[in-house]
Amino acid sequence: MRNIAVIGYGVVGSGTVELFEKNREEICKKIGRDCDIKYICDLRDFPGDPYEDRLVKDFNIILNDDEIEVVAEVVGGATFAYEYTKKLLAAGKSVVTSNKELVATHGAELFEIAKDHGCNYLFEASVGGGIPIIRPLNKCLAGNSIEQISGILNGTTNFILTKMIKSQMDFDSALKMAQELGYAEADPTADVEGHDACRKICILGSLAFGKHIYPQYVHCSGISRITLDDVEYAEDAGYSIKLVGTVKPAGNGRISAIVCPRLVPKNSLLSSVDDVYNAITVTGDGVGDVLFYGKGAGKLPTASAVVGDIIDCLKHRDRRIMIDWEDCTDKDYVVPYKTTLNTMYVRIKAADAESLKPAVTELFGKVLYLERNGRPDNELAFITPNMVEADIDTALEQLSKSAEIASKIRLM
Amino acid sequence: MRNIAVIGYGVVGSGTVELFEKNREEICKKIGRDCDIKYICDLRDFPGDPYEDRLVKDFNIILNDDEIEVVAEVVGGATFAYEYTKKLLAAGKSVVTSNKELVATHGAELFEIAKDHGCNYLFEASVGGGIPIIRPLNKCLAGNSIEQISGILNGTTNFILTKMIKSQMDFDSALKMAQELGYAEADPTADVEGHDACRKICILGSLAFGKHIYPQYVHCSGISRITLDDVEYAEDAGYSIKLVGTVKPAGNGRISAIVCPRLVPKNSLLSSVDDVYNAITVTGDGVGDVLFYGKGAGKLPTASAVVGDIIDCLKHRDRRIMIDWEDCTDKDYVVPYKTTLNTMYVRIKAADAESLKPAVTELFGKVLYLERNGRPDNELAFITPNMVEADIDTALEQLSKSAEIASKIRLM
Repeated sequence: MRNIAVIGYGVVGSGTVELFEKNREEICKKIGRDCDIKYICDLRDFPGDPYEDRLVKDFNIILNDDEIEVVAEVVGGATFAYEYTKKLLAAGKSVVTSNKELVATHGAELFEIAKDHGCNYLFEASVGGGIPIIRPLNKCLAGNSIEQISGILNGTTNFILTKMIKSQMDFDSALKMAQELGYAEADPTADVEGHDACRKICILGSLAFGKHIYPQYVHCSGISRITLDDVEYAEDAGYSIKLVGTVKPAGNGRISAIVCPRLVPKNSLLSSVDDVYNAITVTGDGVGDVLFYGKGAGKLPTASAVVGDIIDCLKHRDRRIMIDWEDCTDKDYVVPYKTTLNTMYVRIKAADAESLKPAVTELFGKVLYLERNGRPDNELAFITPNMVEADIDTALEQLSKSAEIASKIRLM
Repeated sequence: MRNIAVIGYGVVGSGTVELFEKNREEICKKIGRDCDIKYICDLRDFPGDPYEDRLVKDFNIILNDDEIEVVAEVVGGATFAYEYTKKLLAAGKSVVTSNKELVATHGAELFEIAKDHGCNYLFEASVGGGIPIIRPLNKCLAGNSIEQISGILNGTTNFILTKMIKSQMDFDSALKMAQELGYAEADPTADVEGHDACRKICILGSLAFGKHIYPQYVHCSGISRITLDDVEYAEDAGYSIKLVGTVKPAGNGRISAIVCPRLVPKNSLLSSVDDVYNAITVTGDGVGDVLFYGKGAGKLPTASAVVGDIIDCLKHRDRRIMIDWEDCTDKDYVVPYKTTLNTMYVRIKAADAESLKPAVTELFGKVLYLERNGRPDNELAFITPNMVEADIDTALEQLSKSAEIASKIRLM
């Protein structure tokens, strides 16, 4: 039975077709019946492609073909993909996706449509590439109250930071290298400014706490302003700088969520996650800490998750796989990040920086001063006590009257 | 609805009740209806226990109560638990378990009974305690051909080895400490001789490759003969000694599986898994390497997996969750370990050990000699080339004519 379609024949789409066809015999045994890919939908031509005969340009061919049970949407973005997904689900066809933007933006609505039409909308590939995290969180850890989810969720930024830490490359050079190796896009904004990681932590938080977390309510800062000076101070104090997404309950049924660079202690597992690898730690009241680690992106790793979802849909024909969450209209569901407690690394510049130490003590209380090789006289770096973030900002504003605030980075 | 029963009120059983009751409100929301534990079955008395009114001694009360949909079997062993499980499944009640011995010994038969009676037999807690591994392997990674599963699967032995490596305790002292801390049983045989890890790797291999792997066909050696001398040689060469279970395809539809101590390179993630933690790496042709890490045993971590399975059963009432494998009657399914390739660490003793180096070269070809502080003249340690294990044994037999073979440990 040729009951599968793939929409989007880019990196993930071609990986999905390649992996499925390679393992088709084994996969069909798992599903319990013969299955195959019937259509690959893309507006481009792929002359000489081994699956050229399955390529179609008109989405409606897929929509109107009763034989199609499941569609892999690997187009990306929240425009065409959104329209396609709504129509497919409304027609009772299950959709599986790697599209974190779409799930993070319209997930709750799409689950509702799937539910109304007895089909499934699965998204294992949307977070962590091939790393199993959606089902483990939804099923294996369902007996826990989740206390925190924290992770390195973007391979591009982790590659750049690894190069800065291990090879002393500056941000621009490391980004250029990432682009040359195909790890970063020509426009790297979504990765380096943390938007991609933000969508992913929203998906994980929505799943863990049952209500849709919209990315626009989550504070998100990236790595483009991190300098080698910061990396050196952090190293000296026993920390690596990593871009970390975090979500946790904040009491009264609300949650706190944030994506930002953080100083991560060297003795923690997250600090040893290098290059394009991703890792996610989940803390539950029963299980304690569990960690999931692997390649967070790339053609075949992401395809691995897409094909896993295709198999699950086909194994459970006419049965709902309950992996979803409710919509959330409460604009105060995510608490303002300025109200949360943080410990902050701060680097300041001033003509005679040393002379500002008494002022720093007055503003923050006891801080920990950091060192780096060849620290210039006009520079000070320190770690604040754990304080409400708004209070840190007030103190920094005071300090900015006599010094330039060159960097501030939260600790893990 | 009081539709759950727990059989066995020991460590895991009491953890299961505790975690379920603590999170009951949230759990019922996930299931979509009211659920609770009706019976706890144990032959012992628990005067003053908060759930004393739910304790029963007669298993038949559970078997004959139509309200009971799912039973957590956390008795352990393959005698009573086997009889109970068969009867419950035949009565159409789903069973979830942490009992690796029972799953590894009778899994295929029990899945068949569950299938015939439209209920489920789930066993997430049987491997890795609270670490999600069964569903990720069965579902998320289903699109891959699995190339290898390898893991530190026993927390007790990993604790002992960590103490030997990090605190230079000898085996007996480390075992005693593990017993005092409650990590090792009074009779530690199943843990230290590798039987527990063997059952777990059999379960993972059965699931990954679809056919029951019976533990009696899997070579298994433990850590009781590892000395501090071996630990020192390994450290010097950049390795940690870990008890590792491994299963992988061996061609022609057969598999190779083994549990033994191994020299694990310090730069690999497995080598940094310390104390009672477990970690499992799965290598798939699509996903590459993924790693799962967490507490592999203990009251609440194991309960986390048991409760997750209870929830899954109750969410999918009257629907089969397809996590199982076929029976295997082929006695040659597991290839003999002597036919596989291995690189071996060897430590020998002889009056003038140095003089044996030409003989060692003649027998093994070029070996790598290791050092340790204060190595006595009557000792040599070396690493062989990668060779068929039977050939290593033949060479060692030759060598044993002029030296005592004090240790041999495979490399990862």
